[in-house]
Amino acid sequence: MEHEDYMRLALAMARQAAADGEVPVGCVAVCGGRVVGWGRNRQEKRKDAQAHAEMEAMAEASRTLDRWRLKDVALYTTLEPCPMCAGAIYNARVGAVYFGARDRQAGACGGVLNLFMEGFTGGPAIQGGLLEAECSGILADFFRKRRKT
Amino acid sequence: MEHEDYMRLALAMARQAAADGEVPVGCVAVCGGRVVGWGRNRQEKRKDAQAHAEMEAMAEASRTLDRWRLKDVALYTTLEPCPMCAGAIYNARVGAVYFGARDRQAGACGGVLNLFMEGFTGGPAIQGGLLEAECSGILADFFRKRRKT
Repeated sequence: MEHEDYMRLALAMARQAAADGEVPVGCVAVCGGRVVGWGRNRQEKRKDAQAHAEMEAMAEASRTLDRWRLKDVALYTTLEPCPMCAGAIYNARVGAVYFGARDRQAGACGGVLNLFMEGFTGGPAIQGGLLEAECSGILADFFRKRRKT
Repeated sequence: MEHEDYMRLALAMARQAAADGEVPVGCVAVCGGRVVGWGRNRQEKRKDAQAHAEMEAMAEASRTLDRWRLKDVALYTTLEPCPMCAGAIYNARVGAVYFGARDRQAGACGGVLNLFMEGFTGGPAIQGGLLEAECSGILADFFRKRRKT
């Protein structure tokens, strides 16, 4: 599988979030070519501000791999990680992060600040803009529909 | 109860973490004078880098209060929150944070960076240095003993 294939799985998770009425963000955690963690935003349903897609995917990856260190794990997430998720990525030593849409309101990988250039060096390799149009489109659709209701 | 009394509860949680061989950090979440969430670092035992004291206390507070917004909640934590925990505090709209020891390696409330002055404004009221000697002492003891073994 290629990077874009994994991002399509993250997009499928984001669509599930949208179907549940959640802000549509999805994430998969990949290790050795295998998806070891799946996540989608479930903040409203779980009534927990920690239930972001990336947090869920990382937590499942740790359960799958039976360890908290995720150096050999890559995250594919449809939206740029927020400070909480970027901090969790740093704490878990995640090796690489691919994200789709830039987040100018809450992004911590350059959108608002870049955590990994603000004293928290040695973080993951980061690549933004992967399938950006699809990833930002699903968010735009969600908010457009919500304004109409 | 006064601020120092709540911090003593957080210190008791930190001591439990130390007894379990975890880096000793403890936290309690307080709402309307009642402790609604307890947390201690359990990263090694749970094999999950997200299992910081503050994350556990906030998650329990959300379960107790049945909502993700924690504007009326104050956190008492023995160590300055890291970026992940500070980000979770911001996401959950936590109203106030009292911490004990400053963290010059990983603190996101001024120790390394101040997340709440780096684009993430409107965050909690923050007071550091509450029972600082006890809070930093328990960490110093832990690392001194670990170096000897």
